[in-house]
Amino acid sequence: MIRPICRHVSRQLASKRPSIPLPSLTNSLRTYSAGAAPSSLAPQPFKWEDPLALQTLLTEEELSIQETAESYCQERLLPRVLDAYRDENYDRAILTEMGSLGLLGSTITGHGCAGVSQVASGLITRAVERVDSGYRSGMSVQSSLVMGAISEHGTEEQKERFLSKMAKGESVGCFGLTEPNHGSDPGSMETVAVKQEGGGYKLSGSKTWITNSPISDVCLVWAKLDGVIRGFLVERERCPPGTLETPPIKHKTGLRASLTGMIHLDNAPVPEENMFPDVTGLRGPFSCLNSARYGIAWGVIGALEDCIARAREYSLDRKQFKGNPLAKYQLIQKKLADASTDAAYGLLAAYQLGKLKDEGKLAPEMISMVKRQNCDRALEGARKLQEVFGGNAVSDEYHVGRHVANLFVTQTYEGQSDIHALILGRAITGVQAFV
Amino acid sequence: MIRPICRHVSRQLASKRPSIPLPSLTNSLRTYSAGAAPSSLAPQPFKWEDPLALQTLLTEEELSIQETAESYCQERLLPRVLDAYRDENYDRAILTEMGSLGLLGSTITGHGCAGVSQVASGLITRAVERVDSGYRSGMSVQSSLVMGAISEHGTEEQKERFLSKMAKGESVGCFGLTEPNHGSDPGSMETVAVKQEGGGYKLSGSKTWITNSPISDVCLVWAKLDGVIRGFLVERERCPPGTLETPPIKHKTGLRASLTGMIHLDNAPVPEENMFPDVTGLRGPFSCLNSARYGIAWGVIGALEDCIARAREYSLDRKQFKGNPLAKYQLIQKKLADASTDAAYGLLAAYQLGKLKDEGKLAPEMISMVKRQNCDRALEGARKLQEVFGGNAVSDEYHVGRHVANLFVTQTYEGQSDIHALILGRAITGVQAFV
Amino acid sequence: MIRPICRHVSRQLASKRPSIPLPSLTNSLRTYSAGAAPSSLAPQPFKWEDPLALQTLLTEEELSIQETAESYCQERLLPRVLDAYRDENYDRAILTEMGSLGLLGSTITGHGCAGVSQVASGLITRAVERVDSGYRSGMSVQSSLVMGAISEHGTEEQKERFLSKMAKGESVGCFGLTEPNHGSDPGSMETVAVKQEGGGYKLSGSKTWITNSPISDVCLVWAKLDGVIRGFLVERERCPPGTLETPPIKHKTGLRASLTGMIHLDNAPVPEENMFPDVTGLRGPFSCLNSARYGIAWGVIGALEDCIARAREYSLDRKQFKGNPLAKYQLIQKKLADASTDAAYGLLAAYQLGKLKDEGKLAPEMISMVKRQNCDRALEGARKLQEVFGGNAVSDEYHVGRHVANLFVTQTYEGQSDIHALILGRAITGVQAFV
Amino acid sequence: MIRPICRHVSRQLASKRPSIPLPSLTNSLRTYSAGAAPSSLAPQPFKWEDPLALQTLLTEEELSIQETAESYCQERLLPRVLDAYRDENYDRAILTEMGSLGLLGSTITGHGCAGVSQVASGLITRAVERVDSGYRSGMSVQSSLVMGAISEHGTEEQKERFLSKMAKGESVGCFGLTEPNHGSDPGSMETVAVKQEGGGYKLSGSKTWITNSPISDVCLVWAKLDGVIRGFLVERERCPPGTLETPPIKHKTGLRASLTGMIHLDNAPVPEENMFPDVTGLRGPFSCLNSARYGIAWGVIGALEDCIARAREYSLDRKQFKGNPLAKYQLIQKKLADASTDAAYGLLAAYQLGKLKDEGKLAPEMISMVKRQNCDRALEGARKLQEVFGGNAVSDEYHVGRHVANLFVTQTYEGQSDIHALILGRAITGVQAFV
Repeated sequence: MIRPICRHVSRQLASKRPSIPLPSLTNSLRTYSAGAAPSSLAPQPFKWEDPLALQTLLTEEELSIQETAESYCQERLLPRVLDAYRDENYDRAILTEMGSLGLLGSTITGHGCAGVSQVASGLITRAVERVDSGYRSGMSVQSSLVMGAISEHGTEEQKERFLSKMAKGESVGCFGLTEPNHGSDPGSMETVAVKQEGGGYKLSGSKTWITNSPISDVCLVWAKLDGVIRGFLVERERCPPGTLETPPIKHKTGLRASLTGMIHLDNAPVPEENMFPDVTGLRGPFSCLNSARYGIAWGVIGALEDCIARAREYSLDRKQFKGNPLAKYQLIQKKLADASTDAAYGLLAAYQLGKLKDEGKLAPEMISMVKRQNCDRALEGARKLQEVFGGNAVSDEYHVGRHVANLFVTQTYEGQSDIHALILGRAITGVQAFV
Repeated sequence: MIRPICRHVSRQLASKRPSIPLPSLTNSLRTYSAGAAPSSLAPQPFKWEDPLALQTLLTEEELSIQETAESYCQERLLPRVLDAYRDENYDRAILTEMGSLGLLGSTITGHGCAGVSQVASGLITRAVERVDSGYRSGMSVQSSLVMGAISEHGTEEQKERFLSKMAKGESVGCFGLTEPNHGSDPGSMETVAVKQEGGGYKLSGSKTWITNSPISDVCLVWAKLDGVIRGFLVERERCPPGTLETPPIKHKTGLRASLTGMIHLDNAPVPEENMFPDVTGLRGPFSCLNSARYGIAWGVIGALEDCIARAREYSLDRKQFKGNPLAKYQLIQKKLADASTDAAYGLLAAYQLGKLKDEGKLAPEMISMVKRQNCDRALEGARKLQEVFGGNAVSDEYHVGRHVANLFVTQTYEGQSDIHALILGRAITGVQAFV
Repeated sequence: MIRPICRHVSRQLASKRPSIPLPSLTNSLRTYSAGAAPSSLAPQPFKWEDPLALQTLLTEEELSIQETAESYCQERLLPRVLDAYRDENYDRAILTEMGSLGLLGSTITGHGCAGVSQVASGLITRAVERVDSGYRSGMSVQSSLVMGAISEHGTEEQKERFLSKMAKGESVGCFGLTEPNHGSDPGSMETVAVKQEGGGYKLSGSKTWITNSPISDVCLVWAKLDGVIRGFLVERERCPPGTLETPPIKHKTGLRASLTGMIHLDNAPVPEENMFPDVTGLRGPFSCLNSARYGIAWGVIGALEDCIARAREYSLDRKQFKGNPLAKYQLIQKKLADASTDAAYGLLAAYQLGKLKDEGKLAPEMISMVKRQNCDRALEGARKLQEVFGGNAVSDEYHVGRHVANLFVTQTYEGQSDIHALILGRAITGVQAFV
Repeated sequence: MIRPICRHVSRQLASKRPSIPLPSLTNSLRTYSAGAAPSSLAPQPFKWEDPLALQTLLTEEELSIQETAESYCQERLLPRVLDAYRDENYDRAILTEMGSLGLLGSTITGHGCAGVSQVASGLITRAVERVDSGYRSGMSVQSSLVMGAISEHGTEEQKERFLSKMAKGESVGCFGLTEPNHGSDPGSMETVAVKQEGGGYKLSGSKTWITNSPISDVCLVWAKLDGVIRGFLVERERCPPGTLETPPIKHKTGLRASLTGMIHLDNAPVPEENMFPDVTGLRGPFSCLNSARYGIAWGVIGALEDCIARAREYSLDRKQFKGNPLAKYQLIQKKLADASTDAAYGLLAAYQLGKLKDEGKLAPEMISMVKRQNCDRALEGARKLQEVFGGNAVSDEYHVGRHVANLFVTQTYEGQSDIHALILGRAITGVQAFV
């Protein structure tokens, strides 16, 4: 059995290790750790799985959490992903499984959440996205966007009522911000909340590209109340038929292993106590998006690392011409070297964000920088590695084409790469260049 | 009705124009032509659809053929492509339609073929790939690889027997060269032909990634006879059950609107007269591949041009922030400028190849150069333009994601980009760098 | 003796060829031409010096002019360039030599100019820049900017008085448009002309980055007369001391083999008859700049071709490890293949511009496209090829570092690459994105 | 007075700070540090000078050393660099000044060296290269290559005799490894040492591209003794005329502020005790090169940071069109954002190397990765930023052209980028792809 991460956190893990056979990657990462050989000062051999020795920076707890997450993802998620992606079909049970291991809302303290470090949370994200960005999206929405928002902006009563069930994966949440005509510009929001005479609100409007919406029990919807953006927890079971519709969006070109849908609200009722009490304006959704972006910064490197591992293996297995493996081609080696470098650098940057986040020192623009760069480089690297497979890349069984399609989406959502470039440009120059 | 291209070729077109409403693109291209305004010396206004005025280089006949091809593709192919791609389903009737318009084997003279110029043939290819690279692949295999091979290497009797039916699209061909373990290295071929006592041959072996194989009536199979590579026309109707299997390959990550399959030969019988008489070794398949690559060089620019047109339109329609269109972003304009430049340059290079080919002056390395560059630039351009759509790019209804996935495949087949780089490197330095 | 190009133009060349020994490059280009082997239909072998067979497109006259220009440049300019670049020293005699061969203002008809085709003029430009971009700059300013402006905008009397002497290189011109604070924005011009009571004008203001200004006999200065931009031919010999100063700008990081300076005007007198009669506004300078940009589009490919030839030779000569030449490295071959492709494509695009220009069909945005792309690709290619030389690239005797430094400047002047991207973006979308 | 770093190291610094006015950059960096505001948990504002908050990772000692180094470089080196670069003239006094501040051989313990951390040493390197890569090269050769080699491979007597004088900058060293015909392939070394009857050795052969050789007092020369590579300390004062020549190499295209020369040895005498006792083969020079590469990894980011600061300032100062600063261009902001990201990532990677080096956990391939990536990205970033200056970039007074030329050299020496790609490729795949 894979051990829930709260067990690690509560320091009960000590000598005992998960009895399941770990995938080779995890084993290999493990041997690199400071913990494993604390006294040795001999130069570490270079390990292609961890070129700049991220593992030496992790705490014992983080290493254990990493093992749990990697084991779960490789053993339980990987076998499902090919069919899920082909059929655009997300298994609802995944959230329950993740919940049982403590992977949901993992950085939140209390309310049944594990309360791990930001770095540990990043390692979980990376493990999930090593399998598929869609699986990571489904988890991120639940954890960073909905649970994170409730934890940060909710009343104590809201936390009590929602967080524990969501942590277990018993209740599924989605995050309704983006509207059909305002992709990168949430300020033009059209969804409205109207206060009712007898108390409570009625919400009307449409949201699109909402991960998890078709299976959500609770939709965190951002809407304008008297012209001011507020956050509302719309519970499906309280909505009469026709007031809340969450149709899926199909035929996606990427992230097909996650569920995406719309939210149509037509006078959907929301009780008084389901509105966030204090937060107004875009500050509310934006702080959650920053947490989600932080997770993406880790996650996409996981996807890239999977591409590296698969391309490396393929290049060693595949013989050509005089019986030499593809790996002997300089042009192949350069692709591997470039991608490995970007992966290793990306991890160090994400790690630095995590430490700063835990210390309360993280500026949002730092997240823009690392989200953007890691997405860009992961996408570029995955594309280059896809070339290693030549014509065979067209077969989905090599997985790399799927990562490429997914990573393109990660580059465009939660702030398209160019938008983050302009955010950075503004931070650097003090001059605004949005049109 | 769309007019078959042989009508143009026979110079009967003159004043009459197709009565069907032409898509705007074609109209627009037309106005650029020398023919349309032969006496004017005033500077041409810049036209984004044809930035470097390729149209001024085309003959009246080529312009007419271009109109026919563009009309057919936009009116008949475009409406089918989305479903075809989603379901990995190729409509066999397309080949019959193309045949009725003279688009198949169009550069061959006689045997019911149109006998058009290489440039005209390239314009057809570009029109088809403007809709989908898979549709172009299906056509290219029939035209360049199978009909081209028969025309170049076949006996008079073989031409008589096969070409006319294939030109009409009544008979479908496929080209069996690539084997499962030897992607870019056909010299290691394992398929064998054994001469039979009573005459004829029996073929055994496997071919993979064979476009059109599942629906083929005749498979041109390259196999070793006494250690020497020869070409055999394997007719499905002459093969007893179990000797010829052509299972489709599904779950492709690109070119899903074309059919791809394997060819399994288990003592498949081929009569004496179905072997190409003289050509031996790799010279046979390679000359056909060069023709196919020539077509790809034109085709991929068509796909890129479609991406440009769609991204341009989207950037003008989509408003953001203060109501400005996306097109007002410098970062968007740069993507459009870069892609337009690559498209315009790619067309001039493809045109030059066509003229040299007609004049018999074309060196194979020139095709390597232009196939490689146009595929690389089309892919890069399409990817950059996909970014214009932001999160919406994940919807297949914007078509660009499909082009991106297709163009990746075109970059890897018929000589992956790196292979052509090494072919060029050898031609430039005289030194061989294949491992 | 190298034969002046007017001799070719007047069709007296026929059987006689220059008796001087031609450099190998020129010989080699020559054998590729249609003229040389008009009846052969055999495939041309691939020639690395001309990968896409530009030579087959040239007329007999253009081929002869190319020979003259290449011979002159390789024999007379190349031996001088290293010292000139080191010392920032331009030999004034070069203009006289060029004049004696008919290379100055070569497309102008009459007034002692050769009247060659735009393509021929491009071939001259390419030959000069194959040696050094600075030498080409010096020639371009004289030919395209000053002689071109006089030919296009001048009175018959102005043409008579200036063109013939400038064609012979006896009089040197410079083009005063750019001002210290308005690089890409000449509309903000501060230089003014004031009409004098007794006739004539007095000019005051400063121009900077003016090629040839320190040795100019005549400065074509654009200045505002009553708020309207007009062109004035300022003759040095008519200016009293202190009214016209043209100090050189030293310590340049590129184009050090050309002279660059400022123009300081302090009530410099210009007679009535030295103002261009009709042209007003930016239309005047811009039409000349377009001609200069056309020349740059050809020229920079010459510089890139020189880098290719030198890197190729170095990679073949230089042995490493087991005695293999550097040329055997795949990573080296890729650099050569990429650069050769860009050079070949760039030539076809420049050729197309030339034909359109001769036919009066050229749109300015086409020049923006090709100037931009050829400069960008030449610079990128030269940089990649510089890597071939490894540590040795730091020695100026390999010439490539000089080309790299020069090409960076060509990318930034006459419209920096990004500016042309926005010009193209505007032409494509109809939306203006200049800030 | 700028305080020597040993003062910091000996922990006497405490409350006292250097009384000199610090350049604004350093002040600004300082405010970011953990030390400055240890108790605050509020989010740090984003600082463009340190986007990912490297300063929070530094110890108090490292912060102080950084201040000293930055102060010295900005106050003493920057004013000299323009003339030095123009004239290819290195001021010998710089080494004495650096020596007096403890910047030479700073990580060595004892023998008058400061014994600082690897991170502190990297910060020094970065401060020097912020001014000029040539100044950093001169320091690196002294510190990493010569003093480092003596410290690692020398006898106690050698250390005693050489290190202290070199630490003070009284004696200058150079490192003779590269030979004229074997750039990246030192195994083919031709320089030989012959054992003399009466003791000692005589060395003969040539070395090239040797930084500092013209002013060196001691040349560490690698030569083959009986076919085995050994290290010899050749002292100039012990060499009779004609046995040791160190002519400078002039007309360099980069690193012109450092001295480069050759070493010609013609039976140069070396006493018995001047040979390194134990180290044989390429292991000797390679361990030193790794230390030098580690320094380069830090240094080039300093140069890139200087380009960022200068381009940022220029883009804010320079107005265009409607009076908007260049900084308002999206295309400008993207260049700044890209370069800042690469700088910030590069620093985190270099920092990680430093920590691993101090802990004895550093694998050589990690250095290959970071040296390569930081050089590549610094060069690319500097080139992009150079475009910000438009035509003005050709003036050397903007400094960026100098950095670009320097950074190209850093990319090619101590292992050209492609060589390190193949080292990484081998480490990743286990397959060797050197030709």
